Amino acid sequence: MPATVRRETAQGLPTPTPKRSFCDNVLAVNHNTSAGTRKGLIVQMFTMQPIGFVKSPYQNRNDVPRGLGAKHDAEGVLEILPEFEPGLMDIEGFSHLFVIWVFDRSGGCELLASPPSDNRQHGVFATRSPMRPNPIGLTVVELMRRAGPRLHVRGIDMLEGTPILDIKPYLSSIAPELLRRGWLAEAEARSAQ
Amino acid sequence: MPATVRRETAQGLPTPTPKRSFCDNVLAVNHNTSAGTRKGLIVQMFTMQPIGFVKSPYQNRNDVPRGLGAKHDAEGVLEILPEFEPGLMDIEGFSHLFVIWVFDRSGGCELLASPPSDNRQHGVFATRSPMRPNPIGLTVVELMRRAGPRLHVRGIDMLEGTPILDIKPYLSSIAPELLRRGWLAEAEARSAQ
Repeated sequence: MPATVRRETAQGLPTPTPKRSFCDNVLAVNHNTSAGTRKGLIVQMFTMQPIGFVKSPYQNRNDVPRGLGAKHDAEGVLEILPEFEPGLMDIEGFSHLFVIWVFDRSGGCELLASPPSDNRQHGVFATRSPMRPNPIGLTVVELMRRAGPRLHVRGIDMLEGTPILDIKPYLSSIAPELLRRGWLAEAEARSAQ
Repeated sequence: MPATVRRETAQGLPTPTPKRSFCDNVLAVNHNTSAGTRKGLIVQMFTMQPIGFVKSPYQNRNDVPRGLGAKHDAEGVLEILPEFEPGLMDIEGFSHLFVIWVFDRSGGCELLASPPSDNRQHGVFATRSPMRPNPIGLTVVELMRRAGPRLHVRGIDMLEGTPILDIKPYLSSIAPELLRRGWLAEAEARSAQ
């Protein structure tokens, strides 16, 4: 059976102490597996590999438009590694794609985020902050054309060289009248006053 | 600096041979780092940890509705681990969420997928097949209510116990008139004849 992922199962980790940051979980698994004191605690980790890299006009974070009204219409290329090119068959029939990628330069995580679109803090899972427990990014792009293993797309908000983990077809939308957008809608309303 | 992710950098990996499956990449990195013969080849891996687990009515793959016209209105719970609960602050203001999760029982990967909605093969990145190079799932759910670290949602298509990697707010939709849905639209048209 081909293996797509390596699963690290660490049994017998020490009981977490309150002062230990959640951000240390991964390192604790890696460093303390031989110091286990708590039986039965199993932490399963998942190791991901890049399937390609983003060609982007943005070299660093400050280049990416952010905040209320930021437009994401930059063009770029999803360069898929040659060994994965067969996986792109028929992708050119889709107008939009989900791209799942890694914030490989985010440097840490914070459970409360301060988005550029608001002057208040919000839970990281209610934001698109790069400083997440797992530094995974998600972007919807418009597929303009495919040239072999290169997908020319519009709507890039990743940095040059960003590792891509997965691409999926965008199949359906939630109707706008059904959407509630919480703090973001409130921040937009305040900004418009 | 808190560490959110462990990065495994394997330098000096052996040159891949054509007959080696792309699915073996991860194992190659793990097993051959001391046997490097090719200088300068760097493979960066990313290790992800669950932030919680899905409570689902589906115990195994055959329980999940699949194929053309499959409805995904099952209710379930995203049970977030206690240490990540502060990251949910203000999430209740959003009607819909992206859930990024792991196909932890998918068993392998194939670059050409045979979706249940079609009798033809398509590239895995043009499908939602679970057998992906990185076994990452993406589901849009409707958030019904939050009870502490538990998000009660509608639209579950994951199995019971599925590890969750990330949650993000659903902020905007692509207008239906702008969407092209490739082979899926064609399969639907053939099915309706």
